[in-house]
Amino acid sequence: MFEKKIYIERREKLKKIVKKGVIILPGNQESPRNYKDNCYNFEQDSTFLYYFGMDIPHLIGVIDVDNNKEYIFGTDFTLDDIVWMGEQKLLKDLSKDVGVENFIELSEFKIYSAKLKDEKRELLFLPQYRAETILELSEAFKLNPFEFNNYISEKLIKAVVEQRNIKSELEIKEIEKAVNITREMHLEAMRIAKPGMKEYEVVAALEAVASKYNATTSFHTIFTKNGQTLHNHYHGNTLQDGDIVVLDAGARTQMGYCGDMTTSFPISKKFSDRQRDIYTLLIEMFEKAESLIRPGITYKEVHLEVCKVLARGMKDRNLMKGDVEKAVKEGAHAIFFPHGLGHMLGLDVHDMESLGENNVGYEEFERDMQFGLKSLRLARELKPGYVFTVEPGIYFIPELIRRWKEEKKFTEYLNYEEIEKYLDFGGMRYEGDFLITEEGARRLGDKMPKTYLEIEELRKFF
Amino acid sequence: MFEKKIYIERREKLKKIVKKGVIILPGNQESPRNYKDNCYNFEQDSTFLYYFGMDIPHLIGVIDVDNNKEYIFGTDFTLDDIVWMGEQKLLKDLSKDVGVENFIELSEFKIYSAKLKDEKRELLFLPQYRAETILELSEAFKLNPFEFNNYISEKLIKAVVEQRNIKSELEIKEIEKAVNITREMHLEAMRIAKPGMKEYEVVAALEAVASKYNATTSFHTIFTKNGQTLHNHYHGNTLQDGDIVVLDAGARTQMGYCGDMTTSFPISKKFSDRQRDIYTLLIEMFEKAESLIRPGITYKEVHLEVCKVLARGMKDRNLMKGDVEKAVKEGAHAIFFPHGLGHMLGLDVHDMESLGENNVGYEEFERDMQFGLKSLRLARELKPGYVFTVEPGIYFIPELIRRWKEEKKFTEYLNYEEIEKYLDFGGMRYEGDFLITEEGARRLGDKMPKTYLEIEELRKFF
Repeated sequence: MFEKKIYIERREKLKKIVKKGVIILPGNQESPRNYKDNCYNFEQDSTFLYYFGMDIPHLIGVIDVDNNKEYIFGTDFTLDDIVWMGEQKLLKDLSKDVGVENFIELSEFKIYSAKLKDEKRELLFLPQYRAETILELSEAFKLNPFEFNNYISEKLIKAVVEQRNIKSELEIKEIEKAVNITREMHLEAMRIAKPGMKEYEVVAALEAVASKYNATTSFHTIFTKNGQTLHNHYHGNTLQDGDIVVLDAGARTQMGYCGDMTTSFPISKKFSDRQRDIYTLLIEMFEKAESLIRPGITYKEVHLEVCKVLARGMKDRNLMKGDVEKAVKEGAHAIFFPHGLGHMLGLDVHDMESLGENNVGYEEFERDMQFGLKSLRLARELKPGYVFTVEPGIYFIPELIRRWKEEKKFTEYLNYEEIEKYLDFGGMRYEGDFLITEEGARRLGDKMPKTYLEIEELRKFF
Repeated sequence: MFEKKIYIERREKLKKIVKKGVIILPGNQESPRNYKDNCYNFEQDSTFLYYFGMDIPHLIGVIDVDNNKEYIFGTDFTLDDIVWMGEQKLLKDLSKDVGVENFIELSEFKIYSAKLKDEKRELLFLPQYRAETILELSEAFKLNPFEFNNYISEKLIKAVVEQRNIKSELEIKEIEKAVNITREMHLEAMRIAKPGMKEYEVVAALEAVASKYNATTSFHTIFTKNGQTLHNHYHGNTLQDGDIVVLDAGARTQMGYCGDMTTSFPISKKFSDRQRDIYTLLIEMFEKAESLIRPGITYKEVHLEVCKVLARGMKDRNLMKGDVEKAVKEGAHAIFFPHGLGHMLGLDVHDMESLGENNVGYEEFERDMQFGLKSLRLARELKPGYVFTVEPGIYFIPELIRRWKEEKKFTEYLNYEEIEKYLDFGGMRYEGDFLITEEGARRLGDKMPKTYLEIEELRKFF
């Protein structure tokens, strides 16, 4: 937890933006795996964590802007609990540690919510992603649980997003910790992966690195020799000489901040010529983004410039043809790079995704629904304090290539015959985490291998 | 997955017991961590897995007993999905692999459920532990989601419990696989734990063993030098010479079967004299259970006989006094052993706990609410095919000792002054997994260190 004043300041700022109403910020409850008492690792809601800092299940935070009062509702520990759990600091004391003077038993929340309804107060809810939270709030406020999202407050969403999008120095430090653990996870994988191993053995080793730092993963690790399959959580393949793997994994620290990194490396000690060639283009894309990001540029522009590097590179390699600018404008390059260049990063690995990607990543302008661009999560103008990922990819997706070829799509830009020579190539992605500073941008974390030479240097030793 | 006929036989048997009505068996949905698309590892509902075998999120299985028809409802993969996920076997084909001929799109479930309501069919639901399932079923069948448990079927619960309580040979093989991975996890911890390490570093290493076998943990690992705190998921302590640790951890295989084992061992290479003395008594308790379990005896009787071994041992050590039989009958020994001797084990680590512990573990007779006994999860008469844990413990719980002493509880049986000499002792538990056979019982898995000598032998080498 940060110091008390951090949470007080954050709530004060929110009150100033919101001005009127009662903000209801439920924390997460435990998530049962296969019965009520066998739960997944508890993970606190990031907005609750941001404003109240308490990493404990089943609390509800309330900010009554009208009366300038704050509450935590929860079920405090009893003497019986202490027999089973050992000495515990009471919730009412923990609430004071984050500057909230009013701790009330959760059993009284229904009385409190009824009073708010009676007083016809403006109730401010955020969108909810967990059904147990929807059930609890719906019951307390007599809302229709099947239509909970009709009751959410756009005003509150925008206020929270604008506040959380700008990371403070303290937060940047925490994110950087997460990035450095993430880095260790990747280095471990690069050091140990070798022909004959199962993908899941490498995953076991790299996730143990996170655990060794008392961190968890920030999302489900992707580690696959079939990187062309973007939604690939399968870890059952055996690694072989000649394979290239995509590792997309990150750490989440005890404070809740996330790292997110992707590396691609050969299972042999060295890249094959073709792998090295495409990897070099991938890093050109990444470096294009590195050279462009600074306050004032939109991330959509950065994304499109990176796409042009890709299209030009593919034209040089005879896989594309025609006018590069036009090809990118029409979206032909997206056959190789069908996702966006990056997303905000913070207390969520896709920061605040539960509040709506467009709210977090787009601000005023509209999302382009062209294939490829529609998957761009971050497009808005970059400002100092933004933390986000840069993650270009190059994939040869057999199902997509087959389909577009059949549809004769973009035949003026795509040399399908040449592209088909890469049907067994797989895919590659490289991802780093960046902070926008006053002058430009800074990659977070200690130096990370990027070029093929730096990666081969590490792979020497497995 | 098992062969098709296994699932067909299981459903046939269930239909025969239930006789009438429509059985609605929802599978689990994904569980979001911090937003909808960032999920925990998917874990299928164990009853769904038992009858339908498909380890895929968001399916609903239906067994229409009246018309002898079976259905799987789900959202089948589209061409678009295949671009992102690679080639996939379709759900309608996977349904056939488990012998279900009728696959229907989930979007039509509301039409189907309305038809069942119109026909006034007897609807058979099990208790649900996940709110998203409650919301989905409530919406489809127009039930009150805040009172879902008013709609559950006792008849169905009993039928499922009686069927699943008896494990088949195939299941026993799978459980034994899980037990052997569990064993490796424990051996790894015993091999590497040493003074100066953080508890979470040991946890990282032992959980990586499960991952290396492509298994997960079957529940949240307990690894603590404060074993006297029973609900202890904290892993932040530094291990020191003289500590004794309790490790309660298990593996869950890809098929969904679980292992569950507890070991207690010293962080020094050897037990201290006092640790060895109490550990020896603990193993006497375990061996008493081993000697008694067989078809026909109730597990409550086994539990109570084990408690007598404890009470006699404590009397020998001058920590208890008076009549051992009476002390156990009144529950004085529970100060050292406040939980039950064990629980059923299978596709859940506490098998079928979501269906009600009393249904699974008690059958006809009533639960005794005496302190200690009220935490006994399994009490019923043992039958061939039952698989369950034996897990005696001995703890010195300062908060409990203090409270009982203040209340002058059981002063005729408890020598508080002697007991208080152990306030810094901590706790110990030893747990193994057993199968009831026709003649007696068999401990599952390869030979596991049990005596203090066997443990010290392993600890020589860290």
